[in-house]
Amino acid sequence: MMKTLRSIACLLVFVLAAKLAPAQNKIVVFQSDFGLKDGAVSAMKGVAMGVSTDLKLFDLTHEIPAYNIWEASYRLEQTVRYWPAGTVFVSVVDPGVGTTRKSVVLKTKSGQFVVTPDNGTLTLITASLGIDEIREIDEAVNRRKDSQKSYTFHGRDVYAFTAARLAAGVITFEQVGPLLPKQVVSIPFQDAVLEGKTIKGDIPILDVQYGNVWTNIPDTLFNKLNPHYGDMVNVSIYNKKALVYKGSMPYAQTFGGVAEGKPLAYINSLLQLSFALNMGDFAKANQVASGSDWSVEVTLN
Amino acid sequence: MMKTLRSIACLLVFVLAAKLAPAQNKIVVFQSDFGLKDGAVSAMKGVAMGVSTDLKLFDLTHEIPAYNIWEASYRLEQTVRYWPAGTVFVSVVDPGVGTTRKSVVLKTKSGQFVVTPDNGTLTLITASLGIDEIREIDEAVNRRKDSQKSYTFHGRDVYAFTAARLAAGVITFEQVGPLLPKQVVSIPFQDAVLEGKTIKGDIPILDVQYGNVWTNIPDTLFNKLNPHYGDMVNVSIYNKKALVYKGSMPYAQTFGGVAEGKPLAYINSLLQLSFALNMGDFAKANQVASGSDWSVEVTLN
Amino acid sequence: MMKTLRSIACLLVFVLAAKLAPAQNKIVVFQSDFGLKDGAVSAMKGVAMGVSTDLKLFDLTHEIPAYNIWEASYRLEQTVRYWPAGTVFVSVVDPGVGTTRKSVVLKTKSGQFVVTPDNGTLTLITASLGIDEIREIDEAVNRRKDSQKSYTFHGRDVYAFTAARLAAGVITFEQVGPLLPKQVVSIPFQDAVLEGKTIKGDIPILDVQYGNVWTNIPDTLFNKLNPHYGDMVNVSIYNKKALVYKGSMPYAQTFGGVAEGKPLAYINSLLQLSFALNMGDFAKANQVASGSDWSVEVTLN
Repeated sequence: MMKTLRSIACLLVFVLAAKLAPAQNKIVVFQSDFGLKDGAVSAMKGVAMGVSTDLKLFDLTHEIPAYNIWEASYRLEQTVRYWPAGTVFVSVVDPGVGTTRKSVVLKTKSGQFVVTPDNGTLTLITASLGIDEIREIDEAVNRRKDSQKSYTFHGRDVYAFTAARLAAGVITFEQVGPLLPKQVVSIPFQDAVLEGKTIKGDIPILDVQYGNVWTNIPDTLFNKLNPHYGDMVNVSIYNKKALVYKGSMPYAQTFGGVAEGKPLAYINSLLQLSFALNMGDFAKANQVASGSDWSVEVTLN
Repeated sequence: MMKTLRSIACLLVFVLAAKLAPAQNKIVVFQSDFGLKDGAVSAMKGVAMGVSTDLKLFDLTHEIPAYNIWEASYRLEQTVRYWPAGTVFVSVVDPGVGTTRKSVVLKTKSGQFVVTPDNGTLTLITASLGIDEIREIDEAVNRRKDSQKSYTFHGRDVYAFTAARLAAGVITFEQVGPLLPKQVVSIPFQDAVLEGKTIKGDIPILDVQYGNVWTNIPDTLFNKLNPHYGDMVNVSIYNKKALVYKGSMPYAQTFGGVAEGKPLAYINSLLQLSFALNMGDFAKANQVASGSDWSVEVTLN
Repeated sequence: MMKTLRSIACLLVFVLAAKLAPAQNKIVVFQSDFGLKDGAVSAMKGVAMGVSTDLKLFDLTHEIPAYNIWEASYRLEQTVRYWPAGTVFVSVVDPGVGTTRKSVVLKTKSGQFVVTPDNGTLTLITASLGIDEIREIDEAVNRRKDSQKSYTFHGRDVYAFTAARLAAGVITFEQVGPLLPKQVVSIPFQDAVLEGKTIKGDIPILDVQYGNVWTNIPDTLFNKLNPHYGDMVNVSIYNKKALVYKGSMPYAQTFGGVAEGKPLAYINSLLQLSFALNMGDFAKANQVASGSDWSVEVTLN
């Protein structure tokens, strides 16, 4: 009898220990173009909490401009790598909701998951972090109960639901659905290149809050020009073929390396060449924007 | 001695097991018209964490237009049902703060709670989910300590505090305060109706991020017209008695069912008839807004 | 053997009990001028989750106007006291990132921590809550691995990382770095004073969402005029020396104490004298703003 009791106690102890052990990280991070003015984001989170109240829910951003798949792709690129392996991202910028675009779950080689329509959203993250596996969501089993009459909110009915079940361990990655070939719908973009002594690149995004201009020129490529802090960098910015900005500015470690209001070239937090005005707004002052129409040429004096 | 130790071990095991068991879901969801630019929302959450750090805090939206009780009511209607039973909502759109409006906690028939001033905020949620019980908050006991000199922030001092204590199980629902009759302050609104072959309804809200127009006509009522995808829907939209928009558009399952920029009629994610431009902004293009002045008439060709 | 098993069981029980006990509150609250449109806030939270998935992460606000250190200081003052002792705040309004400003962690006398550049952000919170200890972050040990090439995002690489490790108990407060003298970089501001029968004060901030004007005149000072509800308050508001507003309004407990659209003087949720229009926007109607150029004079009839 004593032995039995003791055995039960030990069993319970081990069950409890297992329950406390970190099985998966149970983290879901949401991104969308829904904005924060209505209930759409909260409806997605409610569905996730209905799957498991042990989940930890976070936001990437919900201020992606409506239908802007490129920016959705960039925000994942800017963020996913800083979250631990096992984190499940949901990205819902989905102008084709309810049409034939595939609903997928990507597992990157660094171990994060992304639940999204395969409409270009995975362009940058697959190029940088690589594809470990990609699966198509089988909506016959991975869809919120009683949601069959709703065709316009897969974010709530399919993506948040599937992400929550995957993060909580209710389903395995295999149970998401069948394996797909390791390729995604990709938005064309130009890698930065060195031609002679000129680097040519793009402006994929602005650092919108401050008006800094972020290029796709990595520090490793820029370093081939052998720059030193204080060297003058010559910058030409084009919209299609039209020159929008031409100027020179010192290469500095950080904003405070030049006087207030003065321009600088620097390596940003993603280790890519960028241009700013210290305490000012370079993009606004020089009418520069971002996207596939914008390109840049850089030389060193 | 051995027996005693064993008993203690077992007791501890069971105490631990009880502590791990899901007592209540401990979820609080906040809504307000405070915006996100200042510290008001964070002050409410700090008060909640002071009650129990086991709580899980979420946001519905804090971008309700200032003083707009109708929209607060709609956002609850759009969201509450997707959260598990036991979730406690706090809604603070409270232009009458500190006056005689009652502070209440509603329990819906589906098991969610809403902590709010009874000023119209509960109009739609009580009509759809029903009233299980409603209680008036007894501020003599359910008020943050040392907050008696503050008359203008019940969201922090009474609502967040009471919601946190209820969600954490510090107080029972009964301890909120005395039971009230099963009725709430209600903003008048017109249900959609079928008159002959015409459906008449209202425009309670816009899907603001995309400019889609959401009516209060449920799919079940629209289906009485026996519509098929591709059928043309004739839509007239009025501001008071003035015709603002008159046009025909196909009934489609989702946005991609028509060409880019073209109008469609569809059933939205709350299963109500809506109008949109694929990849466009119907409301802006046609100068349509929402609220009690706006009505709609629909027929099928 | 039985004894050994029993000992192991008991040991496990106590280890588990210790694990369940609230060691620290594990709460981190983020503030910045990053806005919510990009991935910067989420990158910080990802770094924190990489430290410990047991942390609970919250936001104060990320809508501090770019570079506005004064407002960062005010939002901490408005919020920190409502969070439990042990909470760790991260405030990143950091125009001098990468320059010589110190990176510090403040412990207030009320037990909350603030991780921030020492650039004026701590002005108000140290004046009100006091300095228990303040330490400089030793970046040689308290910096995200492999982040040495990044000079422009200490919020992610140093502040979020250090705050997460402190909140999770990975490091003690002592391990943040060396103790500093109990003084911080402070933005000059004028305390409210009573001169004869006139109170002179400042307008540190607007209650932006509603357009209410908040002064730095505490209720305790205003009470020296012996006001009663209904008494008329004479208010003059100056921008530098220029009179911008002059008027009289009743002293009321709350907004609903006057008719819609009418002005009132009241004690706000931080117990400071304020001016509002019931259901209106006092600041907009009277062209009043906030900051070091704005002052106010108040008398009672």
